Amino acid sequence: MKTINLIGSTGSIGIQTLDVMRAHPETFRLQSMSFGSNMTEALKQAEEFKPAVICTATRELADRLKMQLSYPATVVYGFDGLIYAAAETDGEMLVNAVMGRVGLEPTLKAIEAGKDIAIANKETLVTAGHLVTEAAERRGVKLIPVDSEHSAIYQCLHGNWEKEVETLILTASGGSFRDLSRAELANVTLKDALNHPNWNMGAKITVDSASMMNKGLEVIEAKWLFNMPYDQIDVILHKESIVHSMVEYIDGSVLAHMGTPDMRVPIQYALSEPSRLDLQDSKRLKLWEIGQLHFQKMDFERFRLLQLAYDAGRLGGTAPTVMNAANEVAVARFLDGEISFLQIEEFIERALHNHTPLQAPDLATIVSVDKDTRSSVLTYSK
Amino acid sequence: MKTINLIGSTGSIGIQTLDVMRAHPETFRLQSMSFGSNMTEALKQAEEFKPAVICTATRELADRLKMQLSYPATVVYGFDGLIYAAAETDGEMLVNAVMGRVGLEPTLKAIEAGKDIAIANKETLVTAGHLVTEAAERRGVKLIPVDSEHSAIYQCLHGNWEKEVETLILTASGGSFRDLSRAELANVTLKDALNHPNWNMGAKITVDSASMMNKGLEVIEAKWLFNMPYDQIDVILHKESIVHSMVEYIDGSVLAHMGTPDMRVPIQYALSEPSRLDLQDSKRLKLWEIGQLHFQKMDFERFRLLQLAYDAGRLGGTAPTVMNAANEVAVARFLDGEISFLQIEEFIERALHNHTPLQAPDLATIVSVDKDTRSSVLTYSK
Repeated sequence: MKTINLIGSTGSIGIQTLDVMRAHPETFRLQSMSFGSNMTEALKQAEEFKPAVICTATRELADRLKMQLSYPATVVYGFDGLIYAAAETDGEMLVNAVMGRVGLEPTLKAIEAGKDIAIANKETLVTAGHLVTEAAERRGVKLIPVDSEHSAIYQCLHGNWEKEVETLILTASGGSFRDLSRAELANVTLKDALNHPNWNMGAKITVDSASMMNKGLEVIEAKWLFNMPYDQIDVILHKESIVHSMVEYIDGSVLAHMGTPDMRVPIQYALSEPSRLDLQDSKRLKLWEIGQLHFQKMDFERFRLLQLAYDAGRLGGTAPTVMNAANEVAVARFLDGEISFLQIEEFIERALHNHTPLQAPDLATIVSVDKDTRSSVLTYSK
Repeated sequence: MKTINLIGSTGSIGIQTLDVMRAHPETFRLQSMSFGSNMTEALKQAEEFKPAVICTATRELADRLKMQLSYPATVVYGFDGLIYAAAETDGEMLVNAVMGRVGLEPTLKAIEAGKDIAIANKETLVTAGHLVTEAAERRGVKLIPVDSEHSAIYQCLHGNWEKEVETLILTASGGSFRDLSRAELANVTLKDALNHPNWNMGAKITVDSASMMNKGLEVIEAKWLFNMPYDQIDVILHKESIVHSMVEYIDGSVLAHMGTPDMRVPIQYALSEPSRLDLQDSKRLKLWEIGQLHFQKMDFERFRLLQLAYDAGRLGGTAPTVMNAANEVAVARFLDGEISFLQIEEFIERALHNHTPLQAPDLATIVSVDKDTRSSVLTYSK
């Protein structure tokens, strides 16, 4: 029985994590959960899984929750509550499924507490990869990817040696606007952006996919998770999202992980690895039904944010922190209908342009740079 | 330094095995080699690698070889010589790269002598898989596949658990006649059959690919190598031969091994596993250059020999022995221009029809059934 702390329980990954746990009640138990404000979903989850600790955003929500719960749980709230739910319970593993850089401190605290981390929250690694990986190494805990691409690479690396890797090859579906030219991007709407061809995901990551920032975040995430220089991380366009990612070895062998797009597969693997469990109701991959898989060289002119992510990653220090913070605010403003799709790109470029990266920043520096960037980007005029 | 006994040194796999060894002189040393009658190639190989033991087909060839060799080697010949070269030297590993069922006894003897086996000779496993795998298990030696498909599966299984495998999926290029109907097969020539679209291989295996018997042999080989029932072994048509084979796991994950068609990759992996070595001059896979991969359901009506191989495999006992012996003779007769392409199929079906399988045959029974089948098929009228 593995006990799990889950932060971000009512998001897309959180819900699917509970799907996986529901299918294996003998194997996993929910120790704590945190959510933002989706009280209806959270109450349903709590009553089903009966976690000992529940965290929500505010004191008011916490009070309402306590009144409605049918069993005695410890209800906490806010930033301190999130740390408590993530790190200070008996859970053996933290599933970090929150959205955005808010996942950083709970992750660091859970690492210090000796918990393995299943990480769906790529912003944590992008904004402070060196702190998270150093802490995990020092404490001897595992960082296990949940993203389908990184789970694919993790599985293709399993049982092989890091030094024998030539290239990690991330696949990119191209997102909602794959077939549009840059000129055509000027007029796309929010509704268009939220229409991902292959994956049903949260709003922020769907917009990130359309802008290719998601793949940029993944490149930086891969650098940290797999301790690999940027020169050995490639991205290839693969519109079917069947090959989830690949590892090329020094002998020319390429190992690939394939499957139908179903996030429960990487989530479950993160919880069960190195073992695998049944996933009976998942649609199985039948390659003859699909018939063809397409691959295309990535066009870095067309997808400028991917190039920018490589550049920010290579600059290092606080550059990825700024890039990520600018992206989070710009995407939020796009989702609010305030700015156009291409302005996301402009705002991130502007924020990076205005920033001189600090190398090897500590947590306080990262938090402060992140905060300053958010304030600035929030006030950028359209 | 790993010392290697190589039987079948002048065939396609033998030559490429020596290519791999040439590239890693600090890692591999040739202890013995055997060849049939290609004296020119063998002499060149011997002078370069200076194996202590050399085996050839006949006493006359052995005498000629001794006169021409510039260094003192033990030169042996015939069946006893082959056993000596395979099993009675200091080599740690036997690379079985001979063609046809003649590889069986040397393999069994090398296993008894405690040598790991790199097996390119699928007929050995098809004709007596139970004897070979039992012996290997008893003696605690490894059976490492050299075939690209089985090497792919071996690599995709590495670090995973057998019980978590759902299906082994072998890919088939379809061979020289992939796009012909059964009616069109009636008029194909030997030259057509030898024109494989993707792989440059020996004549027998190229014909086996065209008839799909090669994939049938591979299904039976996979059954023995990976201890997997036939119901869990699938074949899919994949004309580009880029995906070399796949393993589907119980969680829906499919791990695939890809690469350009280069037999040195699986040969080298068999020699170096679980480590990998550089293979610098090998053409690297660039999926965007290839652009598309195609997959198609296997048509068992069109490729009747594949169905027949599953049937013979499921019958078990001496049925695969008969199938393999009949195929070896029929292909030899086709290569000699004696019979037509579709008669290969007819002869194998006839041989199986005339045989009542014996279960759990010992070596003597297999040798005798094999011999009887060969005599019969040799006399089948056109």
